[in-house]
Parts: sequence; C-alpha cells; structure tokens
Amino acid sequence: MKVHYLMKPINVGLLGYGAIARQHLYAYRTIPLYFPELKTDIKVVAVYGRTEERVRNFSREYGIDRYYTDYTKLIKDKDVQVIDISLPNRLHYETALIAAEEGKDIICEKPLSIDHKTAFEMYKVAEKAGVKHAIVYNYRWLPAILLAKKLIEEGFIGKIYHFRGMYLEDFAIDPSQPLAWRYIKSEAGSGSLGDDATHVIDLARFLVGEMKRVCGKGKIHIKYRPLLTDRTKQGEVETDDEFMALIEFENGAVGSIEASRVCAGRKNFLYIEVNGSEGSIIWNLERLNELKLYTTKDPPEVQAFKTIYVTNEKHPYFKRFWPPNGPIGMVDGFAIGFGEFFKAILEDLEYIPNFYDGAINCAIIDAMLQADEEGRWVEVPKP
Amino acid sequence: MKVHYLMKPINVGLLGYGAIARQHLYAYRTIPLYFPELKTDIKVVAVYGRTEERVRNFSREYGIDRYYTDYTKLIKDKDVQVIDISLPNRLHYETALIAAEEGKDIICEKPLSIDHKTAFEMYKVAEKAGVKHAIVYNYRWLPAILLAKKLIEEGFIGKIYHFRGMYLEDFAIDPSQPLAWRYIKSEAGSGSLGDDATHVIDLARFLVGEMKRVCGKGKIHIKYRPLLTDRTKQGEVETDDEFMALIEFENGAVGSIEASRVCAGRKNFLYIEVNGSEGSIIWNLERLNELKLYTTKDPPEVQAFKTIYVTNEKHPYFKRFWPPNGPIGMVDGFAIGFGEFFKAILEDLEYIPNFYDGAINCAIIDAMLQADEEGRWVEVPKP
Amino acid sequence: MKVHYLMKPINVGLLGYGAIARQHLYAYRTIPLYFPELKTDIKVVAVYGRTEERVRNFSREYGIDRYYTDYTKLIKDKDVQVIDISLPNRLHYETALIAAEEGKDIICEKPLSIDHKTAFEMYKVAEKAGVKHAIVYNYRWLPAILLAKKLIEEGFIGKIYHFRGMYLEDFAIDPSQPLAWRYIKSEAGSGSLGDDATHVIDLARFLVGEMKRVCGKGKIHIKYRPLLTDRTKQGEVETDDEFMALIEFENGAVGSIEASRVCAGRKNFLYIEVNGSEGSIIWNLERLNELKLYTTKDPPEVQAFKTIYVTNEKHPYFKRFWPPNGPIGMVDGFAIGFGEFFKAILEDLEYIPNFYDGAINCAIIDAMLQADEEGRWVEVPKP
Amino acid sequence: MKVHYLMKPINVGLLGYGAIARQHLYAYRTIPLYFPELKTDIKVVAVYGRTEERVRNFSREYGIDRYYTDYTKLIKDKDVQVIDISLPNRLHYETALIAAEEGKDIICEKPLSIDHKTAFEMYKVAEKAGVKHAIVYNYRWLPAILLAKKLIEEGFIGKIYHFRGMYLEDFAIDPSQPLAWRYIKSEAGSGSLGDDATHVIDLARFLVGEMKRVCGKGKIHIKYRPLLTDRTKQGEVETDDEFMALIEFENGAVGSIEASRVCAGRKNFLYIEVNGSEGSIIWNLERLNELKLYTTKDPPEVQAFKTIYVTNEKHPYFKRFWPPNGPIGMVDGFAIGFGEFFKAILEDLEYIPNFYDGAINCAIIDAMLQADEEGRWVEVPKP
Repeated sequence: MKVHYLMKPINVGLLGYGAIARQHLYAYRTIPLYFPELKTDIKVVAVYGRTEERVRNFSREYGIDRYYTDYTKLIKDKDVQVIDISLPNRLHYETALIAAEEGKDIICEKPLSIDHKTAFEMYKVAEKAGVKHAIVYNYRWLPAILLAKKLIEEGFIGKIYHFRGMYLEDFAIDPSQPLAWRYIKSEAGSGSLGDDATHVIDLARFLVGEMKRVCGKGKIHIKYRPLLTDRTKQGEVETDDEFMALIEFENGAVGSIEASRVCAGRKNFLYIEVNGSEGSIIWNLERLNELKLYTTKDPPEVQAFKTIYVTNEKHPYFKRFWPPNGPIGMVDGFAIGFGEFFKAILEDLEYIPNFYDGAINCAIIDAMLQADEEGRWVEVPKP
Repeated sequence: MKVHYLMKPINVGLLGYGAIARQHLYAYRTIPLYFPELKTDIKVVAVYGRTEERVRNFSREYGIDRYYTDYTKLIKDKDVQVIDISLPNRLHYETALIAAEEGKDIICEKPLSIDHKTAFEMYKVAEKAGVKHAIVYNYRWLPAILLAKKLIEEGFIGKIYHFRGMYLEDFAIDPSQPLAWRYIKSEAGSGSLGDDATHVIDLARFLVGEMKRVCGKGKIHIKYRPLLTDRTKQGEVETDDEFMALIEFENGAVGSIEASRVCAGRKNFLYIEVNGSEGSIIWNLERLNELKLYTTKDPPEVQAFKTIYVTNEKHPYFKRFWPPNGPIGMVDGFAIGFGEFFKAILEDLEYIPNFYDGAINCAIIDAMLQADEEGRWVEVPKP
Repeated sequence: MKVHYLMKPINVGLLGYGAIARQHLYAYRTIPLYFPELKTDIKVVAVYGRTEERVRNFSREYGIDRYYTDYTKLIKDKDVQVIDISLPNRLHYETALIAAEEGKDIICEKPLSIDHKTAFEMYKVAEKAGVKHAIVYNYRWLPAILLAKKLIEEGFIGKIYHFRGMYLEDFAIDPSQPLAWRYIKSEAGSGSLGDDATHVIDLARFLVGEMKRVCGKGKIHIKYRPLLTDRTKQGEVETDDEFMALIEFENGAVGSIEASRVCAGRKNFLYIEVNGSEGSIIWNLERLNELKLYTTKDPPEVQAFKTIYVTNEKHPYFKRFWPPNGPIGMVDGFAIGFGEFFKAILEDLEYIPNFYDGAINCAIIDAMLQADEEGRWVEVPKP
Repeated sequence: MKVHYLMKPINVGLLGYGAIARQHLYAYRTIPLYFPELKTDIKVVAVYGRTEERVRNFSREYGIDRYYTDYTKLIKDKDVQVIDISLPNRLHYETALIAAEEGKDIICEKPLSIDHKTAFEMYKVAEKAGVKHAIVYNYRWLPAILLAKKLIEEGFIGKIYHFRGMYLEDFAIDPSQPLAWRYIKSEAGSGSLGDDATHVIDLARFLVGEMKRVCGKGKIHIKYRPLLTDRTKQGEVETDDEFMALIEFENGAVGSIEASRVCAGRKNFLYIEVNGSEGSIIWNLERLNELKLYTTKDPPEVQAFKTIYVTNEKHPYFKRFWPPNGPIGMVDGFAIGFGEFFKAILEDLEYIPNFYDGAINCAIIDAMLQADEEGRWVEVPKP
C-alpha cells in the first residue's frame, strides 16, 4: 500500500564546502533517524562556495539542488530558512549580521568570531533580530559529556575544586608542512588556542562555570615553514603551536588548560578532568563513549575509578541511537546538537550554546592572549 | 544557480522493522556521503511488517513511501531492486528463495538460516539465479578489522598460531526478564552461540581461515524465567546462556571461542586476538577505533603492544569519513559493508561475505552444537 | 644505648640455587620487615646444589654459611628446621619424603610432583609425619587476589557462573632457542600446562572451587629446535607450546583455561576473570596491584567496571607494606605466603595451600592430559 | 661444608623512625640481593628518635642494635659510617652539617631543606668536607624512568618541546582530618608543592634539563580543619592543597606541573609526559613497570603509543631483579638508588642526584612560591 506524507522539510543553506561542512551534512542526513518526533526532514537546498568549480562539484556530489558563489544571495534566497555558517573565522561576523537582518535562524561554527568585540556585537544583533542562534560546540552534546553534567549536578563529585583540560593533537608536527593560513596571525588570530583550546574552554564553562581570571603562555616550536607559493623558501610561523593557561573560576575552583598541534602521538586527545570534594570525572574524545567516575560514596575498600560505557538506554540520548551498547561516533555530537536546534526552532525554545556562549569563549581567548603578552593574570571581559 | 542531476537511485525493499532494520536505514542514509563515487542515492521505497499498525507507523516515521503486510508482494514489487532481509531467522530461507527466483539482489541478516542444510541450499539457489547476495557480518567492515587483515597479510605477525575470540554481553543477566523467543530452541536454534558467537566465527574465518574440527560446551545458568503470557509462572529456558568452543583450523592454527549473554559487566565485548610467530593483534568492539599490535620486528628494548588509533587517512576507508582522527561508530560498519555491496551491484563485482560465508558459518555452529551433545570433537561439514 | 635481643631465628635449608631459589631468598630477607609480630629473623643457613662450584659461589654471593652437594645431608643437618624444595620437579617427591621422615617442615615449589600419584603420596606422608607443609602458589597471596576472594565471599558478584583464566607468555617464541629440558616429556611432564596453567588452576580452585570434569587440547607450534649439544642439528619438541581446556566445576560453574609460552607480546599475562550472577572481577599479574570489579549493586546509570588500586590500608595485608598507595612487586607474594607459613609454624596453625592443594593440582593436570589424548571429557581423580 | 666469609658490612646510622625510615630499611635489606657485586652487607647499626619508647620499640622490631635520643651522639658514633637523614625537613640542615663535619657520608631525604639558601649552603659544606652525599629522589631510579632517559638520549623522541608532569593524590581530601604539621606554613614550608611537586620537578630536571623561569598558583580548598589538640575547634590551613605551575626550560622547551593532595580518586598519580619533535614518552607511578612510547620512526599506518612492559633483561637494572617480566614495587627504587650510592662510596665515584640537585630543587620551589605571591614569572636562582 502506498502512503502519502505531508512532512514539510526544514530548508538549510550551507555556507562553506570544507571538511566541517561535510560533517554538518552528516547531521542533516541522520537527524530524521535520531529525532523522529520532529516529524520533519532536513534538506540542504543550497550551498555557497567561493570557487565555482568546487562548489558545483560539491553540490553534485552530495545532491544539493542549488549553489551560489555570492553568500549574500544564498542568505537572501527565500527558500532558505536556516543559515549554516561553516566559513573561515573572519567571515562569521559579516555573514551572521546579514542573516540576522534577513530574519534567518543561524548555526555558526566556532569560534564565533576573530575577537571578542565583534563576537559581542554578533550576539547582540542576533538577539535583537529575534532569530534562533547556535554556536557549534559539538562535544558538549556527546552522551558521555551530558552524563558528566548530570552526575555533577546530582552531586556525585561534590563541590568542584579543580578543572584539568587539554586538547592535544600532532597534525602540525611535520616541519615540512607548508605555511598555510593557520600559521599567519592576521588570518587565524591564534593557533592551538583558538583552534583547540576553545573546545576545552567551552567544556570548562559547561561543566564548571564562568571564568574570572586567566594567565597563560603560548609557544611556537617550529619557527619557519616552507612557503605555499615557493616551497624552497621559508616563512615565519606567527601563531602558537601550543598554549598553556591557568584559570580561576568565579565559584572558587581553579584549573589548567593546555592545547597543542605539535604533541607527538596525540591524535584527538580532548581530555577533561573535574575534581571535586567527593569525587572526580574524566573523559577523553578518543574514547568518546566512556566516562570515568570516582566517588567517595562507594564503600572504602572498593572506592575506585570506574569506566562507564555510556551507551545504554539509561544514558542521555541513547534511546535515540541503536540497541544498547553500540558505540557512536564523533559526528553524532553534531547530529544531537543540530537536532536540538531544530527542535528549538519548531517549538520556539531557547537554545544553548548560542552566540552568548560563543562570545564569552572569544573573550576568554582574548584574555589569555593578553595575559601571555603582558606576563600577568588578566580578568575575562563580559558583554 | 539551480542544477539538475540525473542520479538514478537504487531502490531497496526492507523486510522487517525491528532494531536491526533501523540500523540498515542508517547505512542507506549515509552511503551517499561515504561513497560519493557511486553517484547514486539509495532509497528505501517499501517496507514489510507482519503487523499493519506497526509497519505503517514505521514507514511514516522514516519517510518510506509504501508498506506491505505480505512479504511476497514486496519482493515482487517491480520498483524494488534490492531485498533487505531483516526478519527473524526462520524466515530467511523462504524469503531469500523467492527473492532469488524474482532475480532480486539480496542483503540477508546473519545467521543465514537456522541450520546449515537450508543455508547451503540458499547459497546454491542464489548462485544459480545469478543475483548478488550479501550476508551481514558488519564487524569485518570496520576499519580496525580491515587494518588487522592487511597487517596479517603483510606479515606483521608471521604465521598464525592461535585465535582467541569472545563475544560477551550481559543483556540476559536479570532472571526476571521474561521467556522471550530467544530462550526457546524451536524459535532461536541456539542462544549465545547463534546470536553472538556467530560474529566471532566470521571474524575467525576472515582473519585466520577455515575451521576443520571443533568441540564445545553450552551452559544454561538461569534455568527458568517468567512466562511472557503470565509472569507469575515460570517456563524453562532451552537455549545456551553461554557457549565455549575449541577449534582446529585447516592451516594448523588452533583457537578458542566464548560467547555469553550473562557475563556481568560486559556490554558489547566482541574481542579478537590473533597470535602469530612474529606478533599479535588484538581488537575489541567496545573500542572499535583501536587496534593493538605487537611485532617482533621492533627493536628488542621497545618491543611492546601499541594501540593504533585507526582513524586517519592512512587507514582503510578513513578517507571516506571525516577529517583525520574522528572516531566512528558501530553502525558505520553497516554503511561500509552495504556501500561495497551497491558498488558490487553497479560494477558487477563479486561481493564477500556472501551466502557462502553465511552457509559455512551455519555449518560451524551446527558442528559445535553436535560436539556439545556428543562430548567429542566434530568435523565441520562443507557445502 | 646498646640493647640485646633474644630473637631466635628460624633456620632454613635451601635445596636449589636457581632463579626461583633467589626469589625465596627475597622472602626470607623481607619477612622480618613485613611480619614484625613474628619477633624472629629467618636465616638461610645451608644450601644444596648439584655442582660444587656453583653452589659455593651462590652461598658466598648471598652470605649463606654452609653448602652441600648431597641433599640428604642438608635435610639431616640438625641446625636446619625448615626445608625449602626449589629443585627440578622430578626431585620433589624423593626430597619431600626424606624431609617428612626427618620431621622437618617443608616448603615445596609447584608443581608438587610430576604426576598425581606421587603427589597424593607426598600429601599423605607429610600429614602422617605431622610436619607443616606448604606448596608455593605465590600469586594467591597477592593483596588484589585476596581482595577478590573477600569480595566474592561477601557476595559482591553473586553466584559464580563462569571462570576465565589464562597464563600467556612468549619466552619460547624464538625457534632458535635450543631444546632444553622443558621441551622433553620425560623431564618436564608437560609444557605450558604444567609450567603456567598450574597457576591458573590454583587460582580457579581458590576463587571458584573444586573441578569435576575437564577437556582440553595441547599444541606444539615449533616442532623442532636446535640440540643443546650440537646446534647445527635439530631435535623434536615433545611438550605443549600451548594448552586450552574447558572445565566444569562441582558447584555448577563452568570455565576455560589457556596457557601458552609462544603467545607473542604476552610477557607475564596471568589473567583471571570470574563472572557471577551479580557482578564480575578481573585481575592480571602484569598489573598486580589492580583489581577490576563490576557489581549490579551500583545504581544503573553508573554501573561499570572499576579499577581498584589495591594498595591501601583497607586492603588485605597492606598495612604490612608501605605508606598507602605504594605499588608492590611480584616477589612480595612469596614474602606474604612464606610469612604466613612461619606464623603457622610458630603458632601451630593449619597452612593453606599445602600438599593437598598441590596434589589436587597435579590430578587436574593429569586429567587434562588424558582428555587431550582421548579426545573426550575426563573426571578429575581425588586422593 | 661450612664456609667463612670476610665481608665487612657498611654500617648505617638511621635518623628517624617514621614511614620513610622503614622504606629505607627495605633498601638496606635487599641491596645484597640486587647488588651482589658489592660483596658486602649493609647493616643499620643505630637509630635515632626523639621519643625513647618509640625508638626503642622500633630498634627492637627491626633488630637494630643501638638507639639514641640525641642525634649528635649517633652521628658521632665511631661505628657509623653513613648517616641516613629521614627526619622532618627543618632538621635536615643541622644534621647534615654535623655529619659533613664528622666526615660521614650522607643520604638525605627530600626536600634537601626548607628553603634554597640553607640548601645551597648544605651543598657547599658537603662538597668542601669531601663526603659522599645523596638526595633521595627514588623515582628517577625506577627502570621505566631510566629507560625513558635512555630513549630520550638516543633520540627516540627528537628535540624536546614540552614537559607535562603531575603528582596527584587525595590523602587530604577528608576535611575532618586534623590540622597536622603539614598544614602549617612554619613547619612545612609549603603543601603539595614541597611534598609532591618536588618529585615532578626532579624528574623534569632529569629528563628535560634545567628550568629558567616559572610562574604558578597555589590554592587552599579546605580552609579549616579540626585542631589536633581539640577537635571540636577549627584551625586555619596555611599550606597549598594544590599547586599549578608553568615552566620555561633553558633549552627552549616549556611545560606545566600540577600537584594536589585533594584530587579525589588519584592515589599515587605521579605522571610524566615528554613530547618531542619526533615522539613522546609517558609514565605513571601507579603503573611503574610500564613506559609508553610514541615515535614517528614507526611506519605511518602503525604509528601509535606502545606500552613497554619494562621488566626484562634488555631494560635498565632488570638483570638484578627476577626472571624476566616480574613486576617490581615502588620501594625497589630506593634499593637501586641506595645500591648505587654504596657503590659510589666503595669505588669513590660521583653520585647523582646529590645535594646539588636537592639545592636546585629547593630553588625552583622557592621561585614558584614567589611567582604565586607576586602574580608574575620569576627566574630560578642558582647556587
């Protein structure tokens, strides 16, 4: 028997065709499976890219009906309801402002902008326009992190004393890698700090609370790299290969953050540890389905870290996935986060993390850079 | 600019609407992302289910145009090109035979059938009909397993001496769980053996080779469970809660297999270890993106097991996924395996694992059951 | 101020000067530190060895006053109170019988003898002579194993369903290693079975209970090795490189045991897993200070394996060692086990494990060998 | 046959009878087993303690012939050749100066003194007196650390970029623990910094090199504790519960150090990570026999962290211990370090780490405290 459905899809316009844009496509394709209660399909109906040939190929490869080489036109396309900003950081500000003006709901990749002043403005404009706005911090949507949040709120680890976070990678460890945009200050703002530490900062805010003061130090280990234009010549690296920071939170906790792109052997080591008066939790992206928990509520002779396999129906969001105990992948964090954003649109709910969280994150990064420059502790600015 | 594509989709008819069918839907939705070179979309155009209300809801929930309550009709539907058999085991034989007769390509869930005689017949009929046939052993498609296969073939561990495999779970450990079909011999054939050990057997065949003789022992630990119809009464459990087997391979290697559904704390512990004359490999589904390797080719003072994080572009299939080092999930094994099946259809290639592999797997299970019954070693029958 | 003590030491006569004898010396030297309540020193006053030069050197190196090249003389030495049998397996029977006749207390290395008939006799003779007798199964004295025993007895894992034990090593993996005594059946009895599996069997008996029936299979992977006398010629290996066994316990539990000396990468992998109706425990000698525990008594959302770091004052024996949390070493199992034996001597207590445990262990090994030979399950003989 | 030896023992006088003194006794008892080439026995012939009853009991318990309640008398005892200072930190300075004056060789527990000025003086006085002097940093003597040192020197990880070290414990996490000396600034100097971070600092200097500048922050989380004298009253905690520091090394590497006594679940987590241009090493005291190594020298598809089980004859010192693959314990670090000190005495060699290392360590601690107080980076003073 043939049936006819009247599911009106939500139409998304995608700005960008890079690796991150493709991960967003994954979310759009799987949300209908994970969020059947939305009773809708998500359709990417248009894509913008600077280079015509590449954007045309991308649209063909992934079955997207229209492509643009002018982002303003895509943003103004009447069929597009949600704007997905997956562009280089310096374009976030301008495109988000146009989208807000057009009354479009916005999903913006992290970091929200290249400095906290433009980021604060983006937040205010989006709020004033009354559109829904999301910043993409996909890791806080993973079930193990959501369980961590829940356990902390339920008092499993008591009052928080310490946060220890790292994002260690080694993708830049080969000195023969050419001097791409990420190594140039005017294009990238910072190095491992803005690229990696920003995720740690988001998880610290999510799990512990707001930061008051920071100090820190960046370091460039590989000082010269071959020029993209002529690999026989060397150009100077201007952004931090690694960054270390110390933190005071508003609630009295303290902590440390480290990020690196030259940490040999670390592939995707986003590590979070929260120590409290009655326990600790530990998580690591490389084993994203596991959460370690220690609690002094256990009988003394068996007090120990346990490795919770966060994959069953008692855990956050897991009923939406597979039969119990099927490990999920990193991109499923996008699917959950985006699914909740569409739910917020359909049911007119507040969505968090939004541009406020994105703006504060930029403010913390700026404070860390200033602390490094001035060799002292710096207060985090507020919007 | 609007573009028009001429991607003719491949149309799939889905038999079944259970948990496993939903995992197959995931594969159909993500294959276009992972296999852009197919230049096609995969569409599930029809679904069969026994109960009309449930199949109608399922078709609505997941946007499938037609539903049937008679599987023969679905199989004969002219718009359907590929039949996906995700039904209870005892229906695989009948539906596969009709599909082959209709000239439809077939994807069949494991185990191929409830005994090796019908399984052998299914293999022969499908071959004679000239249709493409696949058995769903999704784990052998995970990148870490494919890397293991490659390393073994390249000689990293030398001549294989020993295989050690387990599939340990605890989903049945609560004795108050009612007496469902899986506990009844006439419906399920066996317990942990057919349900779990079958996957271990497939990986053993894939990585080590064919088996010659087996012995084994099943055990029912929870002898009675509440009746589904009246939970105040108890009925007898007839299928093994756990099964242990010893193996002689044709190439001289030996090995052991254990499966359990009452192994407290083990959630999805599909564990594989292959020991050779010059090294070993170890893998475990709970950490599916990791492969352990030991090789005597390393300098003596640093010989050790290493934990390869199988998530970058040097590893099998990883270019199809995300930027390097993004862990994937269990269901991505379906996506890869199914993607390769559609490629085999489009390019008329042989697909492995197919009904031959499914039939041999059934033969091994039957030999293990016989060995248990007779308390002796039993040869594995061949088609 | 000078003080004078009247601590009368216990005098030990050591038969053997190999690697194992030196580990016993460690125990004798450290017991006074770990068991101050014994108020005694342990002195090794004599050592026996076959080769005069080597035994003289050994006695000098470790400060032992007398040496003998005739073990009967050492056993009859009036100054010697305790006989430590650290000789090749085939000499255990004869020396233990002389020692019992002389009324000396006996510490005997495992296995008790080369077959269960002589072992049963040794047990009976020692009992009749009224001497204290110990078999050296040092691993059951490690704090983590003692904690496992305690947790099982306290019901943490419920009724035992399954035992999974392995002792995997790779010391024999190099085929150029010459054909030493351990590869000859008449000298060694069996290979990995008697050498390694015997420890697994002891832990199975300690933690689970007595075995009823066994089946098993041994395998020689490296069939020829260079002769000790002429390395250009090859001789045949006669003892198992690996052994696999299945077990039925008297209490209804089942289990499996594997041992290997050619398991590449495994260095000292004595692994024990006990699965029960309400939990599981796991332990591994390579991380001897850790015990994994899973218990369904935990709240569902945080049920998980925990890794107990068995090194603090709440754990068995740990008050005897160091400030909390200082990991101990493998040889400390000898120190604890021997310390308890001296306490049994001084306070006239029963000591377990003794020759009874040694004899049963030999009986299980013999049953496994017979099962392999006859291709069927075999009952374990009793004294 | 009875033999007579002429091994003249080395006589040690022990100042202190606490937990640490007892660990030193372990070293003295086992050195003859581990260092047979010294051809000598080590005898603790005298012990000093403030409280007569306790020192008398201690001397009886461990078979020490003489005891003193006046340390000057013990130091001047003609039978004593080596002075072991295991006293509270504030007594190190005075006792070491007397010992040097008496021409006695000295083993001093860490930290060398309560500030770097007295420490620098101790170093100069000992040097001038021409006695052998050792500071007890026992962890750098563990085989895994020695292997790490060797691998770094052999270039396995290239040029060092980053050091990451922590010493996390939770022994002080219970707020009902009374206000002992360690919580009072005048008695302890600092908290987790001097107690725990000092070990991390030593390993950083050993593996990476000298430090140039530091910054840092201490934090007291549990501000009040019950008075020892009257537990119904609370007194103020004055020393850091945790300390975080950032470091610039002289060779251009950077790093971070954290220490805590209130880190829930961490028992003896002394963790060291060194990242270089071509690899990384990781070590952790809780698994002291393991060393993780990553090196880009491996083929790309199998580049990964390996876990070297540092327990065989190819590894530093392991021939001195047991048959290959027997894990050793934490106290064996004392045995190795002290054994080398006695060898240095007998063969008149330079011993490292000595008072110079102890003094520099104190200077780094003082610089970190000053950095915290002044909120800025501080240069490390030199002797």
